[in-house]
Amino acid sequence: QPPVGTDRLAAEVQLLMSTTPVWDLHTHLYPATFGSPTCEPTGSRDPNGLALWGIDELLTYHYLVAEVFRVVPPCELPYEQFWKMSKQEQADHIWQHLFLDRTPISEACRGVLTTLERLGLDPGERDLASYRKWFQQQSLDSHIDRVMQIAGISRITMTNPVFDDNERNRWLADESIGDDPRFAAVLRFDPLLRDWDMAGAKLREWGYEVSQELSAATIAEVRRFIRDWVSRIKAIYCAVSLPPGFRYGGSDDLTPGSTIFRDAVLPTLAELGLPMAMMIGSELQVNPSLGDAGDTVGKSDVQSVIRLCHDFPENRFLVTMLARENQHELAVAARKFGNLMVFGCWWFLNNPSLVEEITRMRVELLGTSFVPQHSDARVLEQLIYKWEHSRAIIAKVLVDKYNDVEATGWKINEEEIRRDVQHLLSGAFEKFLAR
Amino acid sequence: QPPVGTDRLAAEVQLLMSTTPVWDLHTHLYPATFGSPTCEPTGSRDPNGLALWGIDELLTYHYLVAEVFRVVPPCELPYEQFWKMSKQEQADHIWQHLFLDRTPISEACRGVLTTLERLGLDPGERDLASYRKWFQQQSLDSHIDRVMQIAGISRITMTNPVFDDNERNRWLADESIGDDPRFAAVLRFDPLLRDWDMAGAKLREWGYEVSQELSAATIAEVRRFIRDWVSRIKAIYCAVSLPPGFRYGGSDDLTPGSTIFRDAVLPTLAELGLPMAMMIGSELQVNPSLGDAGDTVGKSDVQSVIRLCHDFPENRFLVTMLARENQHELAVAARKFGNLMVFGCWWFLNNPSLVEEITRMRVELLGTSFVPQHSDARVLEQLIYKWEHSRAIIAKVLVDKYNDVEATGWKINEEEIRRDVQHLLSGAFEKFLAR
Amino acid sequence: QPPVGTDRLAAEVQLLMSTTPVWDLHTHLYPATFGSPTCEPTGSRDPNGLALWGIDELLTYHYLVAEVFRVVPPCELPYEQFWKMSKQEQADHIWQHLFLDRTPISEACRGVLTTLERLGLDPGERDLASYRKWFQQQSLDSHIDRVMQIAGISRITMTNPVFDDNERNRWLADESIGDDPRFAAVLRFDPLLRDWDMAGAKLREWGYEVSQELSAATIAEVRRFIRDWVSRIKAIYCAVSLPPGFRYGGSDDLTPGSTIFRDAVLPTLAELGLPMAMMIGSELQVNPSLGDAGDTVGKSDVQSVIRLCHDFPENRFLVTMLARENQHELAVAARKFGNLMVFGCWWFLNNPSLVEEITRMRVELLGTSFVPQHSDARVLEQLIYKWEHSRAIIAKVLVDKYNDVEATGWKINEEEIRRDVQHLLSGAFEKFLAR
Ligand SMILES: [Mg+2]
Ligand SMILES: [Zn+2]
Ligand SMILES: [Zn+2]
Ligand SMILES: [Zn+2]
Repeated sequence: QPPVGTDRLAAEVQLLMSTTPVWDLHTHLYPATFGSPTCEPTGSRDPNGLALWGIDELLTYHYLVAEVFRVVPPCELPYEQFWKMSKQEQADHIWQHLFLDRTPISEACRGVLTTLERLGLDPGERDLASYRKWFQQQSLDSHIDRVMQIAGISRITMTNPVFDDNERNRWLADESIGDDPRFAAVLRFDPLLRDWDMAGAKLREWGYEVSQELSAATIAEVRRFIRDWVSRIKAIYCAVSLPPGFRYGGSDDLTPGSTIFRDAVLPTLAELGLPMAMMIGSELQVNPSLGDAGDTVGKSDVQSVIRLCHDFPENRFLVTMLARENQHELAVAARKFGNLMVFGCWWFLNNPSLVEEITRMRVELLGTSFVPQHSDARVLEQLIYKWEHSRAIIAKVLVDKYNDVEATGWKINEEEIRRDVQHLLSGAFEKFLAR
Repeated sequence: QPPVGTDRLAAEVQLLMSTTPVWDLHTHLYPATFGSPTCEPTGSRDPNGLALWGIDELLTYHYLVAEVFRVVPPCELPYEQFWKMSKQEQADHIWQHLFLDRTPISEACRGVLTTLERLGLDPGERDLASYRKWFQQQSLDSHIDRVMQIAGISRITMTNPVFDDNERNRWLADESIGDDPRFAAVLRFDPLLRDWDMAGAKLREWGYEVSQELSAATIAEVRRFIRDWVSRIKAIYCAVSLPPGFRYGGSDDLTPGSTIFRDAVLPTLAELGLPMAMMIGSELQVNPSLGDAGDTVGKSDVQSVIRLCHDFPENRFLVTMLARENQHELAVAARKFGNLMVFGCWWFLNNPSLVEEITRMRVELLGTSFVPQHSDARVLEQLIYKWEHSRAIIAKVLVDKYNDVEATGWKINEEEIRRDVQHLLSGAFEKFLAR
Repeated sequence: QPPVGTDRLAAEVQLLMSTTPVWDLHTHLYPATFGSPTCEPTGSRDPNGLALWGIDELLTYHYLVAEVFRVVPPCELPYEQFWKMSKQEQADHIWQHLFLDRTPISEACRGVLTTLERLGLDPGERDLASYRKWFQQQSLDSHIDRVMQIAGISRITMTNPVFDDNERNRWLADESIGDDPRFAAVLRFDPLLRDWDMAGAKLREWGYEVSQELSAATIAEVRRFIRDWVSRIKAIYCAVSLPPGFRYGGSDDLTPGSTIFRDAVLPTLAELGLPMAMMIGSELQVNPSLGDAGDTVGKSDVQSVIRLCHDFPENRFLVTMLARENQHELAVAARKFGNLMVFGCWWFLNNPSLVEEITRMRVELLGTSFVPQHSDARVLEQLIYKWEHSRAIIAKVLVDKYNDVEATGWKINEEEIRRDVQHLLSGAFEKFLAR
């Protein structure tokens, strides 16, 4: 193949970046089978449904709830009063204060506009009523197809918390609930590592013969529990979110969390050939009144990740950290361990200036051997903006790096760009899964 | 109003940014009533005066004293010898070594040039004598007007340390000393929180019946002291500077500083409806020979700020931190608490590359709900450069963010730009004060 | 001299930056006298030689070894198997996987391409065999001249670890081994400060009468040891690499490392008038299977550096830190102490995006009073790419800063650019040495 040529390079990268499908490795999205609190055109809805979508969910995303409480503080609108409002009233409140009373330039606000525009609606009209009308005509199942097509997503990875009764009961009630081929499941079991008292009690309730002390028999039962659920939901990996204070102290670390991690979780996953994902750095509920928006960030311990990667060469680890101040050290750690895959710019890092600095740093340190982004979408249509914004930044970094090597005489052709882009958007993750 | 149009957007933002007045929320400036060590054309001067201005003060700003000791180190010019030189000799030394012997490209050097140029002098002449001559013809009181006009400042917020005898005695001697409407007062009482032994002794000396133990009676007297001084100086908020090691441990934290903060300071401010400002992260006097230039920076504890915002919902907090490594976490904390207003890029952060990364990150996380900058000026004319440099960066970030939302079809008109710029330069602070 | 003029400024800076010689203050390079494992055209080689050069050394640089183990993980190619391969086989493996199977855009990969191109080879050919052929025709001694000429290096500073037997014995065997005027020596003695048990035993073996307890007599012998070796190798400074956990606790700190630092090392260096270099932040061998590539980074304690600079005003310190999160605080510390010279962007920081942010921040805080870069080259030809990439970034920052001051009317002429560039590339270091 002839080289693309420096003058066409940027355009070619942008084109391939925007047309190559993404496998989104971490979201909080669900197929229609999990029910949705948003009304279908038929009028049916499931008030406790897990699949969130539509304009009112977009506007009441917890990122925007946090932001509206800065401009209409609780002394003007108490938290309880906000939470008593209907979803539509909350959305109206947010629209008024974050979109009309000031220019919607925070990343979360901008995301709503990008999403509307790509769905064919006109943000220039600033007409919430008309947007609502359009969404009311959509039916979730086909809407998923449309959103995936617009966002360029080939597969959506769910997060399936087994200690959440609402979710757990749905899996127990319907064996085929997870069969939608557009979605992949992930077994999430934070309480196992973070709160063994609670987790152990639940396991007993669910028929696993565990004691509070972590005897060999108990460990065996925890392993059985993990195997059962991995198999029930067909998990492609397992996951936990861990606080900034998470430490793994090695084989001498006898805390319940570390013991279960070392003796139950990791051997089971090694046996099953599944990676373990750790999202580290979220300090939970520093402001409980904000609900999902109440968590904050803290610096985490990369050394603990290093110790895990070193001590468990048979395991593979997918790791993201929430603190900006961990990103360089984490990328360096990935240079040391092939079984460590860094991924994404999580939550408070999923902002253009930070995505760019992190992506640039990762490419410089790791080439293309990382997963640049995941969406963390909680509302279906967020896939659109999260990926559009991220793709533009990844493309920008890639063009700069290609230009640097082309300046030496190394010429890049279209096939190579396609290969690199595919690798970044899905291949790196896919190959890591398949290892 | 019609949209501005993408082609005119940048110019419009820059124009409005440079013509919209700033309320500078933290400086160390004073009106002429506080006296000035710089000679008036009439020949009068107050050697201990607090109002600093003029070319020799600009050149001997402690930022530049620190820098000159790197290029003429103490082994060549001992500290004591430098401090024995007259102000004009010090200025000559700095001019020679930082401006003539090398190109003045540090931010503090560049600031002097910007200031001269905006005052109508020509930095291209490199003629210190002629600059001095011009300054000698100025009279402070009208010079303040001119500087504020050039810098586009509507109001200058002072810092009024009540434990500084030079300043305190001036307030006691002249009831109307603070009546200059161009200036607003701020009660600063670091020793109350940082050194109760010293502060308590002083309070007793000043007629407040306090004991070293923090009995209820003592707390009541501390509260009376705060009320007295807030009312005497008409403080618009109270302030402390805290070291990187500052911790607030919650209601169980019985250290004197935390006890006074919790039981005396915050309830009094809640009662008076005034915000509490905390500038956190300055490690004092690691090199005492440098005087004001001898402090350094350390990473602070954002969790303590979170605890204060959570435990004192009736109080409002203005917070800035000195460490770059605290900026992301602090901006995230502000997403959690409407009573937390982050402000400014302080001291070692007030450099273009850092102001830009911090401002960009804050806009992405907080929209416009923060105070992007304060000048921290100690010498009157620094207002000019600090704000010219900062405005250019804030405008640049704003243009990028406007362009991002305009790309979705959301169109911005002049009135909206004006609204956003006013909010950033004065409104956010003003509304926070008025809450 | 007339000003350069804004339109010619960038070109002039780039020209002077690329033609002004560099004194590279830290490398791991050696003159031919130290032997080389790479074959000369004559067929001679020294399998344990220290002077690394040639295409196979470039391709098996430990940065690239780390990177290849991410894409061909140890589960596919075990570490031991890789290490058993010949150097050429390792190079082939890395060429295939990091250059052909994916685009070589990591900084370490790009560096190989820049190096080839500047040596007159064509990276566009992707023809490793032809590159090898070219290198096989080079003779090290004249190749050093060529590389220095292409890279624009006036002097290469070695690192000479006295506790390394291979190196130590070469110095003992040949008095004139270090006489190549292109190279300057540096005495490196990490074990003295990091492992007194080992170091003390070695010193006894080498005829110094030291005991494990740090008696006055022992300290005197350690001082004699340092003097002996400084004089034998004609060291221009002494150096240690220290872990992130390094602490200097002041005069009360009685740990062996701190005692030797305080009582033996620093007084001896003050006496000899030599600076002490500290490279802080490398956590050794978190993955020993990777060999030289197995170290990682951790955040270090700037306060310990401050304490040293404060307590030892008669000493001069050259300091670099490996963690990105130390860079701002370290640059601020340099504002406080004229005897602290910050230098370089070390190892995991020697990536374009980080070099740029660090250089920009340092210029803003320190003007030109720092050493922007060192190469840390281990393979001779790396000098070419490390300096070409760094010079481009330093030039970019300088142009921006010049433009900022020119905007005020301050005009810059060619002589001044030359002066500033010389200062950054060699003068700052040279004057610091000579102080
Ligand atoms: Mg940056
Ligand atoms: Zn998530
Ligand atoms: Zn201040
Ligand atoms: Zn080195």
